[in-house]
Amino acid sequence: MNFSPNADALRALPKSAGLDAVIAMSPENFTYASGAYILTVKQIRPRQAYAVLPAASEPFAVVCSIEESLTRSESWIEDIRTYTEFVVEPIDALVDSLKQAGLTKGRIGIDLDYLPATSHARLTAALPDVTFVNSSHLIGAIRVVKGESEIALLERTTKQTHRAVLDAMEASKLGDTEHMMANKIANNIINYGADGTLFLCFASGERTPHPHAIAREDIVPKPGDLIRFDVGGTYGAFASDFARTYSAGDPSEMQKQVYAALIACETAAINAVAPGVLAEDLFYLCKEEFAKQGLPFHMPHIGHSFGVELHENPMLRPGDKTPLKPGMVLNIEPGVKDEDGSLYHSEDLVVVTETGFRLLTLGIAPRELPVIGQRVAYT
Amino acid sequence: MNFSPNADALRALPKSAGLDAVIAMSPENFTYASGAYILTVKQIRPRQAYAVLPAASEPFAVVCSIEESLTRSESWIEDIRTYTEFVVEPIDALVDSLKQAGLTKGRIGIDLDYLPATSHARLTAALPDVTFVNSSHLIGAIRVVKGESEIALLERTTKQTHRAVLDAMEASKLGDTEHMMANKIANNIINYGADGTLFLCFASGERTPHPHAIAREDIVPKPGDLIRFDVGGTYGAFASDFARTYSAGDPSEMQKQVYAALIACETAAINAVAPGVLAEDLFYLCKEEFAKQGLPFHMPHIGHSFGVELHENPMLRPGDKTPLKPGMVLNIEPGVKDEDGSLYHSEDLVVVTETGFRLLTLGIAPRELPVIGQRVAYT
Repeated sequence: MNFSPNADALRALPKSAGLDAVIAMSPENFTYASGAYILTVKQIRPRQAYAVLPAASEPFAVVCSIEESLTRSESWIEDIRTYTEFVVEPIDALVDSLKQAGLTKGRIGIDLDYLPATSHARLTAALPDVTFVNSSHLIGAIRVVKGESEIALLERTTKQTHRAVLDAMEASKLGDTEHMMANKIANNIINYGADGTLFLCFASGERTPHPHAIAREDIVPKPGDLIRFDVGGTYGAFASDFARTYSAGDPSEMQKQVYAALIACETAAINAVAPGVLAEDLFYLCKEEFAKQGLPFHMPHIGHSFGVELHENPMLRPGDKTPLKPGMVLNIEPGVKDEDGSLYHSEDLVVVTETGFRLLTLGIAPRELPVIGQRVAYT
Repeated sequence: MNFSPNADALRALPKSAGLDAVIAMSPENFTYASGAYILTVKQIRPRQAYAVLPAASEPFAVVCSIEESLTRSESWIEDIRTYTEFVVEPIDALVDSLKQAGLTKGRIGIDLDYLPATSHARLTAALPDVTFVNSSHLIGAIRVVKGESEIALLERTTKQTHRAVLDAMEASKLGDTEHMMANKIANNIINYGADGTLFLCFASGERTPHPHAIAREDIVPKPGDLIRFDVGGTYGAFASDFARTYSAGDPSEMQKQVYAALIACETAAINAVAPGVLAEDLFYLCKEEFAKQGLPFHMPHIGHSFGVELHENPMLRPGDKTPLKPGMVLNIEPGVKDEDGSLYHSEDLVVVTETGFRLLTLGIAPRELPVIGQRVAYT
């Protein structure tokens, strides 16, 4: 992978948290803590992998033998142990390694927000003198502030996806199916640098309210229809996440007004990003802006942090009182339904800087509802 | 989604398993049991969704409000309840619904192979008179035999991906980077009908032994290099999974022989597929064939079942004594390293029929190691 996890903070974590060790094993925490991206940890979940950070000795990892060579080539952790799938239960291999390291009592952190209940039962039965506590949030807290390499990577992926969308929608025309348009975006995302697609939510007209609908081959957007999509490519362990709304042509005045008002709200929320502002402040500010613009507001959040996980903390939601800090990377993505029930949505990525923020997309969308076939200009 | 889950078997499950209800909540079990494909259940894991099948009353589902409209449009379950993200913990919403349904004592099955330990602790504390038991395998057992609609879908996705690969490798040439070749495959997968990519593992030369490596922009395969890839597209809740090995040109005699021997072993394993054969029989038969061919054998499994989950049971591994039945769908995928350390791999999908098997790919690879730029013929 082409990013450097904060290895110093990871090494210091067990002591600072008063734990004898911390075990990173959710897909995102393993990826971040080990620096190795094993895609089967997500896609073949029983094939668990563990990065163990002891307080008093060197870190080690336990992975499936199939993933050994990849882990050795990518991880900063030198001590890589393996298990043979179906011969040894992964959690039993972890237990053996913990015993070898003398970690048989005390308090050990592990991702209880991810560890399946059956694995947890087996782990606690095998090590009855260890108190296992949840450490998902502890590694999450290190991941909150991104390093330069992560920010550069996220800026590159996001700008590539933004360009992919601009070019695809300019190349789309009335008569194209949803699937043809979504394919153009997908092809561009891959050809502009991604190694795959993470998701391609794409819908038009009356299907726009389904936030995660998939483009259909049998639907041809017609004049007056909105087209809404939320798309992302994969770039190893990282991704992009970007949403826009277009018109298939001949938008109504009402549609133009709702769209312009939504972009005004998104812009206001982005312009408020600065160190010290609380995550929930952005939510409430956006909600107030919706009221000023006369838009109905129904979102549980207006955005999320973004890193090796699609939705990370802080979340831009009521109750998240995390003060923003330089290096945090936020997707800001308000959405609104018009009186006809169509859903509008716009999403941009920003990084918090010492003095405010910097956009990681090519630019916020202009306030004029774009029409397919047109080039959208960004200042 | 364009497949029909086995709703009768699902409705009958709690009674036949002696449970008061079964709760499907792993991404695959929720998808299968509800018939609704909510991609965020995988990609934003805290946004849990539950399909509840009571023994004595109508089924219901509990989903995030954001996913309500999609669930209503896709699921056969009529009673859809929602929770507001960040206001209510998903597991608390499940508890409330279970209480409303009178499910406050007795034995209830839930996916303990997926349910995170923290959610499990909260669930059992809120319903102390319920004994929660693991039912991951019970829904898994229903998923084992695919219906006609699933088989038709998997055949279509697999043949599309096979064609995507044939065309991409024919269009590739010496001088192309790994990334250019992998992009051709990805573009074809999407253009031939997928809505995205599931994974694109692609490596050449000395990186072939990493089973899940990602194509690199800075590597140009050279004559004598092997090219190995394992790729899949997404088609709603379903996918494709297909692997092949090519030569960049001028393969050595040793490479040709190892490749031909591998295909002979794969063919032998496929030809042995028939009702009544045990899953592990195929493993041991393949292992014996490796010995006959003089190939080293190091695989923990030689294939897996395939459905809404990438690796399903039965697995073609020692100890899996599941007798094959008509309607089971299996990926058979032996791999072997040659004396230089390069990894060869070939993967085809078959369905078990009343009399034997039927290939769901276009055909097993010919025994001649294919070279990029060439059209590979399939009989």
